[in-house]
Amino acid sequence: MSGHPAWKRTGLDLRLYAVLPATGGHGNQALQAAGLALEGGATVLQYRDKQGGTRSMWQQAQALRHLCHRRGVPLLVNDRLDIALAVDAAGVHLGQGDLPVAVARRVLGPQAVIGVSVLTLAEALHAADEGADYVSVSPLFATATKPDAGPPAGLAQLALIARHSPLPVIAIGGISAANAADAIAAGAAGVAVVSAIFSSPCPRQAAAGLRAEVDAALRRYGKEHLA
Amino acid sequence: MSGHPAWKRTGLDLRLYAVLPATGGHGNQALQAAGLALEGGATVLQYRDKQGGTRSMWQQAQALRHLCHRRGVPLLVNDRLDIALAVDAAGVHLGQGDLPVAVARRVLGPQAVIGVSVLTLAEALHAADEGADYVSVSPLFATATKPDAGPPAGLAQLALIARHSPLPVIAIGGISAANAADAIAAGAAGVAVVSAIFSSPCPRQAAAGLRAEVDAALRRYGKEHLA
Repeated sequence: MSGHPAWKRTGLDLRLYAVLPATGGHGNQALQAAGLALEGGATVLQYRDKQGGTRSMWQQAQALRHLCHRRGVPLLVNDRLDIALAVDAAGVHLGQGDLPVAVARRVLGPQAVIGVSVLTLAEALHAADEGADYVSVSPLFATATKPDAGPPAGLAQLALIARHSPLPVIAIGGISAANAADAIAAGAAGVAVVSAIFSSPCPRQAAAGLRAEVDAALRRYGKEHLA
Repeated sequence: MSGHPAWKRTGLDLRLYAVLPATGGHGNQALQAAGLALEGGATVLQYRDKQGGTRSMWQQAQALRHLCHRRGVPLLVNDRLDIALAVDAAGVHLGQGDLPVAVARRVLGPQAVIGVSVLTLAEALHAADEGADYVSVSPLFATATKPDAGPPAGLAQLALIARHSPLPVIAIGGISAANAADAIAAGAAGVAVVSAIFSSPCPRQAAAGLRAEVDAALRRYGKEHLA
C-alpha cells in the first residue's frame, strides 16, 4: 500500500464513487465500462467480485489498477485485502461481514484507505474509533442491485449519521441522478452507485450526469449549509 | 507473518499434513476435529473455506491459530492471504487458480511459508523459481473429496517430480493409511489428507495411524534410499 500516500494526505474525493457490479466484474467489457465511468467523472472506483477465483480477481484488479492510475483515481477493493495488496490498490471497502476495520488497518498500514458500510450512527462511530477513513450508509434507499440488503436507512438516518460522524459519509443504494442531490442535502460528501452507471447504456454519460448533480448540490448544500 | 520465523529456519515438518474440509470448516466441531488431528500427530494444519464470508473465516482461523500455536504446529491458510495475514498464520497454500507464488511472496515477505499444488514437474520447477517452500502433487489418486480435481498424477509422476524438485514434495488425494507408504516410497516428504482424518469417526486415532505409517515408511525409504 506504499504507492498511494497521496490519497490520505490530499484528501479523498468521494463525490462520485462508482462500484462495479459484483457479477460480471470480469473481462474487457467491465474494464471498458469502468473506463467510461472514470471519463464521465467518477472520483473513486470500487472493484468487487463475490464469485470469481482469486487468480481471475487479481487479473481484473490489476487491469483496473492501471486504469485508475492513469486517471489519478483511487481503486478500492471490496472485502479482499489480499487482492488490494497484490495489486497495490489504494485500499479496501469493508462490509459488516468482512474483516473488522482494526484488523484491516493493522494488515494494510496507516496509508491505506479503509471504508466501511454502516446502517446506524453507532456503527459509524465505531468505524471511526477503529481507524476507518470514510463510512458509507448502505443501503440508503431500496435497490434491485442488492435485494438481500437490509431495510433502507433513508434520508433522515443519513442526515443523523452525517451530522455526528467524524468521518466523511457517503451513501449507496437506489441512488440516481434524480435523487443524488437529496443525499448531498442530507449531508453526504458524495454518492456511490452501481446500476445508475453500469446498467446505463452509456456509463460515461450516466457518470457525467450524476457528477453534475452532485457538484451542483454540493455548491448548494455543502458543508457550510450544515455547520 | 513475523511471528513464525522458526518454520523457515528449523525446517518445515511435512510428514502428516492435515487439511480441514472446505465445507463445514466452521464452528466448534471442526475446531475439535482439528485439535484431535494435532493430538494424533499431524505436523501441519491447513485451513480452507471456499464458501464462508470473510468475517467468519477470520474467526475460525483465529481459533485454529491459537490451537496450532499451543501445539507448535504451523497453520497454513488455503488461497486467502488476507486471512493468513489477519491471524498471523505461518503461511498459505496456493492452487494454480490462486495468486501466483511470486505475488504472494512479495505480499507476505520472506518468512512466510508458501506451498503450491502442482500436477507436473514443470509446475513444480516453476513454483521453486517463484519462491515457494514446498509443492504438493495434487491429486495423487482419484478422490471423492474433490471430484472436480483433474486426472490423478499417480505414483510414477510423484516419483518423477520428487526426484527433480529442489523443494520438498508432498502428495494429496486419495491417500489413506493403506497407501501412505507408497507415496513416501515414491519420494514424498509427507502426505496430506482430508477425509482419511476428518471423515474418520476418531480423527485422533486416524491421524496417529497415518503418522505411524509415514514414519515407518520414511525410515524404510527416506532420502538415503533415493540418493
